[in-house]
Amino acid sequence: MLKHFQVPDDIAIRIDVKKLRGLVEEIFIKCGVPKDEAVLGADVLIFADESGIDTHGVSNMLRSYVDLYNSKVLNPTPKLDIVKETPSTATIDGDKGLGIIIAPKAMEIAIKKAKEVGIGVVSIRNSGHLGAAGYHAMIAAEKDMIGWCMTGGGNAMIPTFGAEPKLGTNPIAFAAPCNNQPHFMFDAAMTSIAGNKIGLANRMGKGMEPGWVANDDGTPDMHGGNSADFAANSVRRQLPLGSTRELGSHKGYGLGIMVDILCGQLSFAEGFANLADNRRGHFVAAYSVDAFGDIDEFKNNMDEMMEGFKTTKPMPGHDRVFYPGLPEHEVRIERRKNGIPLHPEVIEWFKNICSELEIPENL
Amino acid sequence: MLKHFQVPDDIAIRIDVKKLRGLVEEIFIKCGVPKDEAVLGADVLIFADESGIDTHGVSNMLRSYVDLYNSKVLNPTPKLDIVKETPSTATIDGDKGLGIIIAPKAMEIAIKKAKEVGIGVVSIRNSGHLGAAGYHAMIAAEKDMIGWCMTGGGNAMIPTFGAEPKLGTNPIAFAAPCNNQPHFMFDAAMTSIAGNKIGLANRMGKGMEPGWVANDDGTPDMHGGNSADFAANSVRRQLPLGSTRELGSHKGYGLGIMVDILCGQLSFAEGFANLADNRRGHFVAAYSVDAFGDIDEFKNNMDEMMEGFKTTKPMPGHDRVFYPGLPEHEVRIERRKNGIPLHPEVIEWFKNICSELEIPENL
Repeated sequence: MLKHFQVPDDIAIRIDVKKLRGLVEEIFIKCGVPKDEAVLGADVLIFADESGIDTHGVSNMLRSYVDLYNSKVLNPTPKLDIVKETPSTATIDGDKGLGIIIAPKAMEIAIKKAKEVGIGVVSIRNSGHLGAAGYHAMIAAEKDMIGWCMTGGGNAMIPTFGAEPKLGTNPIAFAAPCNNQPHFMFDAAMTSIAGNKIGLANRMGKGMEPGWVANDDGTPDMHGGNSADFAANSVRRQLPLGSTRELGSHKGYGLGIMVDILCGQLSFAEGFANLADNRRGHFVAAYSVDAFGDIDEFKNNMDEMMEGFKTTKPMPGHDRVFYPGLPEHEVRIERRKNGIPLHPEVIEWFKNICSELEIPENL
Repeated sequence: MLKHFQVPDDIAIRIDVKKLRGLVEEIFIKCGVPKDEAVLGADVLIFADESGIDTHGVSNMLRSYVDLYNSKVLNPTPKLDIVKETPSTATIDGDKGLGIIIAPKAMEIAIKKAKEVGIGVVSIRNSGHLGAAGYHAMIAAEKDMIGWCMTGGGNAMIPTFGAEPKLGTNPIAFAAPCNNQPHFMFDAAMTSIAGNKIGLANRMGKGMEPGWVANDDGTPDMHGGNSADFAANSVRRQLPLGSTRELGSHKGYGLGIMVDILCGQLSFAEGFANLADNRRGHFVAAYSVDAFGDIDEFKNNMDEMMEGFKTTKPMPGHDRVFYPGLPEHEVRIERRKNGIPLHPEVIEWFKNICSELEIPENL
């Protein structure tokens, strides 16, 4: 299903991962981002591309980041300010830095606290786009911890029974380490579909599926249709996960509010109280598995559990059952070998921006 | 929508809350539960009934608890054992106690830790049914903290693309305090519908809605039908929240695994690694809001945010938009005044069990 939002093979041009990574680093540096943070930002974007999460990779996000640096909305040299701190918590002001670079730093703080007292929870305000939340959760998993990451804000999701958007798409990411199996990595918007995917479907001329968006009056559209029927506006009339009350939309809606509370209210971020359009906040947490029991036993148990999902008898029309993190792992192996498939239009953008920023490129 | 699973007004007999509470306490005591824990257990059940969560109240759950005490599956006098502990975590063995009584005690431990170091997280193994998870999360909210509660285990949910159940319904509850508005209280299964609601719909002769259960081969049933078409078996073929892959069932499935990891793997509970049928584990957490910022500012902000959801323009056919915790609050006010509506068959059961246990009753 990841494929639905990827560039078709016959159009895609494969770009070597290292080459693309180097180029992204250079672009960040030209935007004024210090070298080590440029490397980190590129790593977050490339992780998304490598993992098949094309919606959050270079093709979909980098140009918006560049625009936001150029227009001074984002600060390329933010100074993270720990506003308040306890042994297991921190409230951070991101100083208008880009979220994809702020969040890993916040996660390192959470991990340090988890090592010391068992749990580390960090709420973050005043920070830009978070990128693929799964990346940040996986930092904890790679260190034998359970990792959480969420980001809230914006107005895209319509409350159950409502006729106007009052919440963002508000993704939840959660990662837990395995021993021999790929780590469990869940990362999903609490709308029935990620906002970026509606944009991508529009751009690729694909229709909306039933249950993705609402009609003008707020009633759930359960028929689907051409993207033209919904136009760009549909991205701001998204249905909660569950789509209709009967199918459980109050659950996607409720989880969406939960994300807003953890990201925005807990970080005392501007605009969350009154559901302002421009609000944004993040949340990361690390749980030391060692604090609860033996890490090796945990990881072996995780292996066995994930194996149980993989070996589930499939329903007709499918030959395999996946678990979150497994398809991304398989795509990573393939793309690290064969390169990242980019749309020719994205290659064109790279050529233009490199020329503009005077970066040598050989894509 | 709560109404769908409540006894119709023309059949229901209203029972005074205090009278019902006293009777439930007596029944627990006759099962061998110590007085203070009987009071606590009754409070959890009555909270569900008062709040309109009839699926988790006395009518639906108490008889099964009594059976489990009588058959010695549950231990009426468990000794909670803290297996491992750090400043912000505890791993607890519930000694086969009933979850509705174990979980509030675990939450008190979490709250104590949160007071000391900011966050308290407790994982619980070897404990029976948890009841309404929202009750336990609300304990934290009442103490100006954010509360989480989850329970995992059993085999009811079919993985996306799968043909057999591999997960429980795995509810997530989350509560956060307001100042003047009713507290935010989310509590929902990660299947498209709670397991108890399928049982209740069956009992009340109501049909399954589209998207609730799978056909024999695992394909999602998107037509709905009479309960007879699905029989009792359907309770073990539930679809994840999202129902189909296109509507986001991989999200309900992924959140379901997350709950299993936090409840079962993190507590090192028996059976979770191999997805055994009899597995059960719980998870509670408390976040001190004070650790992140000013509690009064937080609660006032929460008021404003919840007000924003309440005043959302409704879609056609609806005159109000709710937020999680609001309808339950309104039902509590009404039922505390007018009594809890019970089905005559439930009254009959009370009369029989009281006669059996030699408890005087005057329902």
